[in-house]
Amino acid sequence: MILKGDRLILGACYYPEHWPESMWREDLRRMLDTGIEVIRIAEFAWNKIEPREGVFDYSFFDRFLDMAEEEGMKVIFCTPTATPPAWLTEKYPEALNADIDGTLFYHGARRHYNYNSPIYRELSARITEKSASHYAPRPCVIGWQIDNEVNCETDFFYSESDHNAFRVFLQEKYGTLDELNRAWGTAFWNQTYTDWQEVHAPRKTYTNSTNPHEVLDYYRFISHSARSFVKLQSDIIAKYKKPGDFITTNGLFGHLDNHRMTAESLDFMTYDSYPNFAYSQELYAGDSDVMKDRKWSRNLSEVRSISPVFGIMEQQSGANGWNSRMEAPSPRPGQITLWTMQSIAHGADYVSYFRWRTCTMGTEIYWHGILDYSSRENRRLREVRDIHRKLQALGGLAGSRYQARVGMIRDYDNIWDAQLDIWHGRLERQSQKAFFEAAQLTHTPFDYVYLREDTTPEELAGYTVLFYPHAAILTEKQAKLLERYVENGGILVAGCRNGYKNIDGQCVRDELPGLLSGLTGTAVAEYTPIAPDTGAVFINWDGDRLPASEYVEELEAAPGARTAGVYEQDYYQGSGALIENRFGKGTAYYYGSAYTVDAVKTFLKKLGVASPWAGVVQAPQECELAVREKDGRQYLFLLNYSPKAVGAQLLRPGKNLYTGETVSGSLELGPYGTAVIELT
Amino acid sequence: MILKGDRLILGACYYPEHWPESMWREDLRRMLDTGIEVIRIAEFAWNKIEPREGVFDYSFFDRFLDMAEEEGMKVIFCTPTATPPAWLTEKYPEALNADIDGTLFYHGARRHYNYNSPIYRELSARITEKSASHYAPRPCVIGWQIDNEVNCETDFFYSESDHNAFRVFLQEKYGTLDELNRAWGTAFWNQTYTDWQEVHAPRKTYTNSTNPHEVLDYYRFISHSARSFVKLQSDIIAKYKKPGDFITTNGLFGHLDNHRMTAESLDFMTYDSYPNFAYSQELYAGDSDVMKDRKWSRNLSEVRSISPVFGIMEQQSGANGWNSRMEAPSPRPGQITLWTMQSIAHGADYVSYFRWRTCTMGTEIYWHGILDYSSRENRRLREVRDIHRKLQALGGLAGSRYQARVGMIRDYDNIWDAQLDIWHGRLERQSQKAFFEAAQLTHTPFDYVYLREDTTPEELAGYTVLFYPHAAILTEKQAKLLERYVENGGILVAGCRNGYKNIDGQCVRDELPGLLSGLTGTAVAEYTPIAPDTGAVFINWDGDRLPASEYVEELEAAPGARTAGVYEQDYYQGSGALIENRFGKGTAYYYGSAYTVDAVKTFLKKLGVASPWAGVVQAPQECELAVREKDGRQYLFLLNYSPKAVGAQLLRPGKNLYTGETVSGSLELGPYGTAVIELT
Amino acid sequence: MILKGDRLILGACYYPEHWPESMWREDLRRMLDTGIEVIRIAEFAWNKIEPREGVFDYSFFDRFLDMAEEEGMKVIFCTPTATPPAWLTEKYPEALNADIDGTLFYHGARRHYNYNSPIYRELSARITEKSASHYAPRPCVIGWQIDNEVNCETDFFYSESDHNAFRVFLQEKYGTLDELNRAWGTAFWNQTYTDWQEVHAPRKTYTNSTNPHEVLDYYRFISHSARSFVKLQSDIIAKYKKPGDFITTNGLFGHLDNHRMTAESLDFMTYDSYPNFAYSQELYAGDSDVMKDRKWSRNLSEVRSISPVFGIMEQQSGANGWNSRMEAPSPRPGQITLWTMQSIAHGADYVSYFRWRTCTMGTEIYWHGILDYSSRENRRLREVRDIHRKLQALGGLAGSRYQARVGMIRDYDNIWDAQLDIWHGRLERQSQKAFFEAAQLTHTPFDYVYLREDTTPEELAGYTVLFYPHAAILTEKQAKLLERYVENGGILVAGCRNGYKNIDGQCVRDELPGLLSGLTGTAVAEYTPIAPDTGAVFINWDGDRLPASEYVEELEAAPGARTAGVYEQDYYQGSGALIENRFGKGTAYYYGSAYTVDAVKTFLKKLGVASPWAGVVQAPQECELAVREKDGRQYLFLLNYSPKAVGAQLLRPGKNLYTGETVSGSLELGPYGTAVIELT
Repeated sequence: MILKGDRLILGACYYPEHWPESMWREDLRRMLDTGIEVIRIAEFAWNKIEPREGVFDYSFFDRFLDMAEEEGMKVIFCTPTATPPAWLTEKYPEALNADIDGTLFYHGARRHYNYNSPIYRELSARITEKSASHYAPRPCVIGWQIDNEVNCETDFFYSESDHNAFRVFLQEKYGTLDELNRAWGTAFWNQTYTDWQEVHAPRKTYTNSTNPHEVLDYYRFISHSARSFVKLQSDIIAKYKKPGDFITTNGLFGHLDNHRMTAESLDFMTYDSYPNFAYSQELYAGDSDVMKDRKWSRNLSEVRSISPVFGIMEQQSGANGWNSRMEAPSPRPGQITLWTMQSIAHGADYVSYFRWRTCTMGTEIYWHGILDYSSRENRRLREVRDIHRKLQALGGLAGSRYQARVGMIRDYDNIWDAQLDIWHGRLERQSQKAFFEAAQLTHTPFDYVYLREDTTPEELAGYTVLFYPHAAILTEKQAKLLERYVENGGILVAGCRNGYKNIDGQCVRDELPGLLSGLTGTAVAEYTPIAPDTGAVFINWDGDRLPASEYVEELEAAPGARTAGVYEQDYYQGSGALIENRFGKGTAYYYGSAYTVDAVKTFLKKLGVASPWAGVVQAPQECELAVREKDGRQYLFLLNYSPKAVGAQLLRPGKNLYTGETVSGSLELGPYGTAVIELT
Repeated sequence: MILKGDRLILGACYYPEHWPESMWREDLRRMLDTGIEVIRIAEFAWNKIEPREGVFDYSFFDRFLDMAEEEGMKVIFCTPTATPPAWLTEKYPEALNADIDGTLFYHGARRHYNYNSPIYRELSARITEKSASHYAPRPCVIGWQIDNEVNCETDFFYSESDHNAFRVFLQEKYGTLDELNRAWGTAFWNQTYTDWQEVHAPRKTYTNSTNPHEVLDYYRFISHSARSFVKLQSDIIAKYKKPGDFITTNGLFGHLDNHRMTAESLDFMTYDSYPNFAYSQELYAGDSDVMKDRKWSRNLSEVRSISPVFGIMEQQSGANGWNSRMEAPSPRPGQITLWTMQSIAHGADYVSYFRWRTCTMGTEIYWHGILDYSSRENRRLREVRDIHRKLQALGGLAGSRYQARVGMIRDYDNIWDAQLDIWHGRLERQSQKAFFEAAQLTHTPFDYVYLREDTTPEELAGYTVLFYPHAAILTEKQAKLLERYVENGGILVAGCRNGYKNIDGQCVRDELPGLLSGLTGTAVAEYTPIAPDTGAVFINWDGDRLPASEYVEELEAAPGARTAGVYEQDYYQGSGALIENRFGKGTAYYYGSAYTVDAVKTFLKKLGVASPWAGVVQAPQECELAVREKDGRQYLFLLNYSPKAVGAQLLRPGKNLYTGETVSGSLELGPYGTAVIELT
Repeated sequence: MILKGDRLILGACYYPEHWPESMWREDLRRMLDTGIEVIRIAEFAWNKIEPREGVFDYSFFDRFLDMAEEEGMKVIFCTPTATPPAWLTEKYPEALNADIDGTLFYHGARRHYNYNSPIYRELSARITEKSASHYAPRPCVIGWQIDNEVNCETDFFYSESDHNAFRVFLQEKYGTLDELNRAWGTAFWNQTYTDWQEVHAPRKTYTNSTNPHEVLDYYRFISHSARSFVKLQSDIIAKYKKPGDFITTNGLFGHLDNHRMTAESLDFMTYDSYPNFAYSQELYAGDSDVMKDRKWSRNLSEVRSISPVFGIMEQQSGANGWNSRMEAPSPRPGQITLWTMQSIAHGADYVSYFRWRTCTMGTEIYWHGILDYSSRENRRLREVRDIHRKLQALGGLAGSRYQARVGMIRDYDNIWDAQLDIWHGRLERQSQKAFFEAAQLTHTPFDYVYLREDTTPEELAGYTVLFYPHAAILTEKQAKLLERYVENGGILVAGCRNGYKNIDGQCVRDELPGLLSGLTGTAVAEYTPIAPDTGAVFINWDGDRLPASEYVEELEAAPGARTAGVYEQDYYQGSGALIENRFGKGTAYYYGSAYTVDAVKTFLKKLGVASPWAGVVQAPQECELAVREKDGRQYLFLLNYSPKAVGAQLLRPGKNLYTGETVSGSLELGPYGTAVIELT
């Protein structure tokens, strides 16, 4: 029913187990009356189906689903594995997760289990089988959510089962200890393994620092474990679900290849979007980032890279917080609409609010839903009704896709390497942040483009320019792919520290930038983090000045390549900072530093890809501009994240979908205001 | 002998076990010569009585008490259970306390035991029985201290014995697991218990966050455990103590219902007062609080609420610190007097200095007593002699009581809930701090008024105004009590977030403020923490402007009630911020935010209770004003906490008790100076 | 070959196990070509000799040493005990170290073992015996390094073996528990031991604070354990090494009496010098210390106090960092030379760079050597070649010794006490920092003078002035030694808090400054840390104003002594701050506070020892001035730590050893520039 490309649908998260059964029917009716057509249920309700080991009782949800069917509500049903029952963990403590010291995590939070415990996998498979076989045939059920927020709460696992499974994972990957020793560089610090039993997942070390190649494999292993756990359930559900019903889970979290998980186990991704975190007490104070809630468009762009059209399983509708941490205010009038439209602008055709009513018990009593603790009508409910009204008018854009000509290449090996390697991580964080901000401020839509096993040159060919800032790890296959892209006319912009590691995370002994040397026509003569007493470093690029950041590589141009920019400060003054290399029909740039916002803006402008909609709409910096397109129709989203009204100029006439009127010229957006214009 | 209402008495803490016996007699004589009539001994001396398990040897303290009796010194004897012997914890590690991970705490500090270990309770009872039966008959012994600073060092206990005792505590409280599951809201996150063995005290969880209702019961359980441990000893001592001898312990520490402990086990409370902490390296730097050492009057007000006339078991007399933490300077000339008078102003009739001489060994070598390591005469000893001289002249006020017409209501359930719930805690900390500071600066004496099981309307009736700022948890009984108070003419000022939780700490589904709705004539339409980008929020109360803080509730007045104040900022501009409701002969106010100092000042002024002594004395802000009263005689205390001399104006003549002279008009207080005036 | 007093020699650290054997020969030739004559190898290569327990295979290093001998490279061979093999710790987990909670540390870092495990000592002795007996006869081997950086990574050990060995250490030290109880002051907080099994190394306590006297003994025990482990190996190597070959290890790290270790086990100390840490991301930001990389001269002065002529086993030659922490930039042009000359100025006759080539795998991929990952020629290699050229010209100063007339007395008991006692530590850190900075800025060379068991008055007599700022622990023997020094004409400057503790770290009951009272003619009447609200405190010393710091003692002059300075602030205004006491032919000063830079400068000037070379060279503050002397020849080192060129004035002609030219008058030092002048 949802994501069918025919209309935009609203949903909500609902917890029948939190409320007296006597409240159910009125809740269902009020939700439907509000425009909420779908609810998600049961993701933390194992006990309601298997109250004791091996004893199954379907009556609770049967009663609820009966009523849903009577009232006409559709349901996404969940597997309950994110919170195992107390009877389970008390009897099988091996199902629990542990910290790196081996100390177990217990009940009270979530995900206090590990993915590799044989007994937990067995019991999880059984509850999934029981649930799916019983509930999947219900007419009201339209799809399934597996677990809840996989790898949320933690993306580190150190139980005994994980140590054992890691060993098996490595045996399958490397075959022999010699291969493992080679890949992990165990000759360093005398870490050579002579028996498989000596191999463990990371354990406690001084300054919490262990072999980085082991850690890289360990992150891969966590991803493997989580994927395997999801697939275990997905395979079972697939046996029972009705034709047309979907399987999904709600992300995105760390140490997890979401692309591969989706490809092998899901129909599409759903995302849980909480932009109000940006205004929480903990984050706001120390946060100099001007993007605030607008940063969630980064996350939505990630989701788009997995599923071009996707769902929001949890969209923020109130103040958020636990009793013990996180305190964010209530959304101001208009913000629920703003964040809903932000989701839709990036490709969401289904938006489900978290949650119908605020829970009165447990850790999340401050994680507010649409309603507060009481059933009293309120401002947020009124706003959701208004959103529903708006979405009726937007239905035509369902199934349309976000448009971008600029891509930012990403891949999991480098994401994980940047987490374990602070030199890599510092560059990555800086450049990604700068890139996003520059793209937003210049209204340059972009896509994240993940390099996967099966990525083809054709997938890349759609982008005029691709950035790949600090791909420390680079494989021959990836290098070839990039070469093909440039040969065919693409523009590739590499940043410093490209290609200095192999797939194991070991540094290559080649001259740098290693596998990118030929494509970029570049040799790195010297390199250094910018010293803390250097001050600002600038690069002169044919007369334009770009502020560098974090790192400096002194670059030499190969024959045929051109030194397009040089440093202006410190001992590397005059050394090459940017190399331009024609390659086939395209051009490769190698940039010797990390990105600042101004540097990215300069690249976008010089490479001719900045502000592609400038001829259509002049929007102020406070607004995000996004465009979805389907069947030749273009839908412009204008999202004002500021508390002040702003004005845009529409240079071509279009239809304001909220009002149905044709508009052009001045367009006013109120505080947190939004507009969706279908270009005519 | 002490707290008999006849005179003020000085004491000191003394450690015979720290010094060669050859020093004892001279020490006793010098103390008596200084005016110190009572000493406290033996609180860390288990080994001196039971050097090996089951072997008792009374000779050490017998020799000391013989000498005390010869010299005429009175003695408070302690049970030694705050530091179990090494032989005990080595043989019975189950007596040790553990952290939340289960890791044991060992010797080296104090309270490394738990209250629930059966063997530790048995051995504690035996050493108490042995000590009491042997030493209680001694003529010099005038009273007993149980343990030392109960719940100091830690107020968290996670030993195996605690897990077991918590289970028993819950079985007695709830009877059935169904009741427990209901009270703890275990339907949330699938925490339902199906067997009592699954129930534990909090254990390690992600982000150290477990079920808040469980934590609330856990804090109640800690209080229960500590009280039970004190009562175990108190019951034994009661069998042996001489008539007229007292039982006490020295507080105040966390997770402990001191009121109930005192009622069931003690004759009165004593307090350990260390105002110089305010000038320690650790606290001073980051502390923007202008109250500094004056804050200790908050603690003394707490003690007063337990025992209107009380003792100070440890009054700071030197620099303080451990070898490993805490560094505070020596009291400046006058400060020992100031802090002693601060204690007496609030109701202390006995003040015992910590300690006669600074210890030369162990962790507390920088916790200075009156003397330094040597026996050399010094400035602090001279000051104590002068204090003794002053107290002779103040003797007439012994037994008098602190006077206040304003009360701040407190109760343990909300205190503990504010510790586990950061939303609640933030409000509570802010408002309590503001209230204390405003009361101090306006010279408005106040009492803390604890709501207990047996609190009567009559107890409340003595107060013109009662504040109860953020009573999240509110029971019907308490609501009725408050209604009775207002009906009878009282003025109640509630703050935001009142009444939104039940006794289990679960949120109520009623419209807010729940049980206070009727009394306050208020409905809460919307609420939100003040967003971090909002800036200052003001409330207009009939033309007066009050700065709000932390939280905003949009209030609606019920029929008959009046919207007395509205917000001036953000989207809630113009919404109700203060409701005034006539109720019986009194008035209830519901205030939609947390308090600032200026807000409290406005309330005190508008409600006519600010500065009740303004017609008697005009004191500068630097001074605390306190009044004790007995048999119609009033004693004014003026305490200057500043390093500069200040002047007050006495508008009615009185007797300066330090000099015996009648004074009026200008009264000069030197740096850290004090004066006690008996009004005539 | 090295440290023979005939020439200055360059070396490098090399890791044959990191590189294909096919690279070895070219590396050896290039190193020799660069001027590197010695390499250190094998410190983390246990597996290369004993790949399985009891299986020894010498072939790997035999092949390498064969090649070294063919090419003419000399070798320092290491014992590999700093990183035990995985097979060892997997089979014998008792060899692992633990944290204070008892949780074991595992593979992944270094020194994850303890010095006291019987099996680890046995296996360490065996690998040492095997290595030494096999490799020592090799002609290319010229010396041995034991382990690597003893007590680096951690200087705390809490394994079961450590608890047991600590008990034995204490039994040997104290004989009886009564003596232990007395020394540890266990009467405090009831810590009396009645059975040796109750005695443990420190374990987990609240606020991580245990008996300070126990901790003092525990630090002594760690030093004892490390020394014993080094001696175990040293004794074995001594049996096998060729005559003239040396034994050393590379330091300095904590909880280790390096002087005693060197005396009993080594021929001389080597040091690992990484001044670029000062420019690391972690340290630079929060570091207000103006000394930056110049601070490493403090460390080098420490090394000189152990071995007047010494080696640098690891001299920084590139950017540094782990993948998980520490990020420092590449040395700027000239800095490798600067830091090499800094080492030599202080007495290094051998300088070995860390390392030939940057490792491509493991934790230290960012700990750069001379070459980067590739073998590409680079700027740093060119600089090392230039250093080699310079050293050829400096060879004549080999064997010369650093010259100083001012001494700073130190001793391990006080160093360790200052670590466990924050009151002591705060003073010590402040005064040592101020002293070093003042000495550097005034170009006043100084020595650290360690008081050891066998220190003689003659050793002290060489110094005009000795500072001993805060010797909390003072023994009669030390007091006598100081008296002898002053009697004979020396000037002793004591700082506050001298002599208030005995050898156990217990405070003395004597009047302060205890054993120094007579020598200094001083009595301490009162004392206090300077209160945080006092503001700046000044001392007036016969008209000169010195800023005090941290602490104030109010001093009284004994008959014959003179109050030379008084405080100007707070309640101690006018009290004695500095006592001057003629004693024999010399003078003792007792100074009642901690040192500031300006205070030290005043002392140096007033006591006539500031800037002893002012008549020879006028150097700017940015430069360090050091002088080495041999056979009447004096070598002036001028080291410019700043990024700007500076000018010095040579007032006497000398020979610029870099150029061979005679110079006088203006002498320009470029950015990071250095000069070595042989005075004529």
